[in-house]
Amino acid sequence: MAKNFSSRAENYSQWYNDLVIKADLAENSAVRGCMVIKPYGYAIWEKMQQVLDTKFKETGHENAYFPLFIPKSFFSKEASHVEGFAKECAVVTHYRLKNSPDGKGVIVDPDAKLEEELIVRPTSETIIWDTYRNWIQSYRDLPILVNQWANVVRWEMRTRLFLRTAEFLWQEGHTAHATADEALAEARQMLDVYADFAENWMAVPVRKGVKSPNERFAGAVETFCIEAMMQDGKALQAGTSHFLGQNFAKAFDVKFLNKQNQLDYVWATSWGVSTRLMGALIMSHSDDNGLVLPPRLAPIQVAIIPIFRKEEQLAIIDDAVKPIIAALRKKGISVKYDNRDGLTPGWKFNEYEFKGVPVRIAIGPRDLENGTAEVARRDTLTKEIIALEGIEEYVANLLEEIQSNLFNKAAAYREENTRSVNTWEEFEAALDKGGFVAAHWDGTPETEQKIKEMTKATIRFIPINPEPEEGKCILTGNPSPHRVFFARAY
Amino acid sequence: MAKNFSSRAENYSQWYNDLVIKADLAENSAVRGCMVIKPYGYAIWEKMQQVLDTKFKETGHENAYFPLFIPKSFFSKEASHVEGFAKECAVVTHYRLKNSPDGKGVIVDPDAKLEEELIVRPTSETIIWDTYRNWIQSYRDLPILVNQWANVVRWEMRTRLFLRTAEFLWQEGHTAHATADEALAEARQMLDVYADFAENWMAVPVRKGVKSPNERFAGAVETFCIEAMMQDGKALQAGTSHFLGQNFAKAFDVKFLNKQNQLDYVWATSWGVSTRLMGALIMSHSDDNGLVLPPRLAPIQVAIIPIFRKEEQLAIIDDAVKPIIAALRKKGISVKYDNRDGLTPGWKFNEYEFKGVPVRIAIGPRDLENGTAEVARRDTLTKEIIALEGIEEYVANLLEEIQSNLFNKAAAYREENTRSVNTWEEFEAALDKGGFVAAHWDGTPETEQKIKEMTKATIRFIPINPEPEEGKCILTGNPSPHRVFFARAY
Repeated sequence: MAKNFSSRAENYSQWYNDLVIKADLAENSAVRGCMVIKPYGYAIWEKMQQVLDTKFKETGHENAYFPLFIPKSFFSKEASHVEGFAKECAVVTHYRLKNSPDGKGVIVDPDAKLEEELIVRPTSETIIWDTYRNWIQSYRDLPILVNQWANVVRWEMRTRLFLRTAEFLWQEGHTAHATADEALAEARQMLDVYADFAENWMAVPVRKGVKSPNERFAGAVETFCIEAMMQDGKALQAGTSHFLGQNFAKAFDVKFLNKQNQLDYVWATSWGVSTRLMGALIMSHSDDNGLVLPPRLAPIQVAIIPIFRKEEQLAIIDDAVKPIIAALRKKGISVKYDNRDGLTPGWKFNEYEFKGVPVRIAIGPRDLENGTAEVARRDTLTKEIIALEGIEEYVANLLEEIQSNLFNKAAAYREENTRSVNTWEEFEAALDKGGFVAAHWDGTPETEQKIKEMTKATIRFIPINPEPEEGKCILTGNPSPHRVFFARAY
Repeated sequence: MAKNFSSRAENYSQWYNDLVIKADLAENSAVRGCMVIKPYGYAIWEKMQQVLDTKFKETGHENAYFPLFIPKSFFSKEASHVEGFAKECAVVTHYRLKNSPDGKGVIVDPDAKLEEELIVRPTSETIIWDTYRNWIQSYRDLPILVNQWANVVRWEMRTRLFLRTAEFLWQEGHTAHATADEALAEARQMLDVYADFAENWMAVPVRKGVKSPNERFAGAVETFCIEAMMQDGKALQAGTSHFLGQNFAKAFDVKFLNKQNQLDYVWATSWGVSTRLMGALIMSHSDDNGLVLPPRLAPIQVAIIPIFRKEEQLAIIDDAVKPIIAALRKKGISVKYDNRDGLTPGWKFNEYEFKGVPVRIAIGPRDLENGTAEVARRDTLTKEIIALEGIEEYVANLLEEIQSNLFNKAAAYREENTRSVNTWEEFEAALDKGGFVAAHWDGTPETEQKIKEMTKATIRFIPINPEPEEGKCILTGNPSPHRVFFARAY
């Protein structure tokens, strides 16, 4: 495993990119901005999917699948939606290739032009609400609680593996409700589901909040978000949940007969998280020795490495390790026993360390004599000698401890890097230190825009129930009823 | 549940379409040829995915994800591959929309034309082998055993829900090997996995075989297939596994150092099944009363319906049913207890019958007095009175019995509709009866093509180890060493 990669202090952004590639998580493809998610990276994403999918089903949602393509005209139906998405989309204009007349390769067949161009979905509100129109007649057809796991495409100019790619994988929930209150409650519920997942599985502490109008989803009445903080002090939006009001129902003419027998437009939400979470996971915990994975999402939780010189020694270790592996697996722990020949224990140690495997167990002939093993934890890089008897209990507890330790470390970092400021000078100084900056803002989009242009910082979130505190906007001095949280962000 | 739909005898193709739509499995979308898979249909597909994914992992495969888009030039690199796929593909030519100058809607921005057009993947051999080039240097990097769950697009002119859609969901395995033998063994292994899945989960008997050159995958050296027979006597190709030789390695220059330290091209396979399996599942078992699902893939295996007039009666039944539900769930059986008010038991019976739920249990006050329930099975539409004591055991066995019964029924139908013929007249007569026709063929693509033009029948498969039998081609009279299996097909 190559260790020749940048340290975080040296070049954080290079460190991230090196790590993603060298830990075999993902790589760039021949198609600009589109990544290949490699098996090890995909295994982590699969674990994320499983946990989230279970949570969605527990909260009453079902999966479905809607078309990849959206007719161009659908985008014009919701005014702010088109503004938000039309600038960055892949457009299908033809449906056939033919042999080039010069005999070299293939060309697009000009006779196979589509009457109406198709957009590769950047998000599916339009095609889904066009479908819901036929599913909904009365309040008895509501709520519709549907989720879709899918790929989407947004033509990003500057891409980074996982964090911002032209194509990415995500889930998008799209729900339909009879009342505004019910839709709002749904949007809030899914925000809680996301926060629970981020904190208790990814070990990434997040702040829940509301977006300012400038940062709101194109077509939403209100956008709720969870915001995490990376080790370089930058914020990362890890998930969003939108209360869409009746905007899409009006755009796609989706009405229902309510209990009072009156026709009304349907209320909507949408919510999503994506492979961007992989970026958040990697940047929250990893270090200059490579990846650090929280046990609950690690494809391999425990790597066991035999220390041997002769084949006879290996045979003895193989036998001794079998019941340990069985005992660990019985506890639901995923184990890899790496007894490959031709690779030194040191090489294997580096490999599993670099790939973020939470616990490593090394067992040699002397350990067997003593009835012990060396147990190393990835988060602290410390080792202990542990009795083989009952080691599965020890490891199970250790995995839980690593899970909490990662969360606590990230939470402490975030607390240290959340600063309250009252003046423009303090604001700029705090931004340069990195992290969240709690400051007063006059509530206007113009001021937020100016601040963004001057500092590259945006309002990451407004607390959902902000603590009332009279103050003055850091830029304009106009009155402000409470603080909002700024940061530079991914 | 609307029963006003065509019978199989009346109009088989209309029956299929009505069933898919009225059983809430899928529907057509606003995008030509692209379907919406509705929650009930998607729940069946999810069950299929879970079983297949487990089987892939048990045979050593890992999942990964490759780009949706493929540069146009990649298609020209493998000569027969481009012939097979270039005629039917969605082509992305631009990456931006802009407001129309006339203020009405949006138009494609002519300034945002791609230098090289991108094809929405119809299958991923090209982009994957372009990627594998960087993953493989020596025999130590082999085999690569990767699978991808993805959407693909083939611009079909005539589409039918699940059976042939412009966009469909599938999995595609792409493996790389050091030797031809190993790759062939892999292709055969995956064919066995597919056959096992079709027969033991879908309850659909299949014939394994090899495709004739005319029906071979574009770019393959050998295509293995499983072929099923639908209730109208038409064949349906349910899955394919390809031995690709070194074709893609040569097209994308993927070489490795073998154990003899010589550079050689890598050997390849690919294999896939798609949402087309949903069509096979529906057409194999369903009847004029609606869907019939094999228990192992049914999202709801048992529906329990209380029979009551007064609320007090329902309260008593609710209580009595709780331990039964718990006992069934403990056995891993998925149960839906439908105690909705305002819908008659008869309506509910129809609903679950139409949706193919394998077992229905009805319980009323008199049943409770007698300690019994009425258990109805969907496959035979028969009912029995069963003691509540130990009913979970009875139901578990019944589900197994239904699973085998469906398989046996379909297998018997196939046997009845497999005919050996020796003359052209017999051949045409057998084709008109439907089913597989085992006949002699002279082995030339020209003869197969002529037969196809004359009868619409194709060679569905050549047995993998055909029984030697000297004979004469039904069309040309030329010598033939064994029979092959013809049919009209989906």
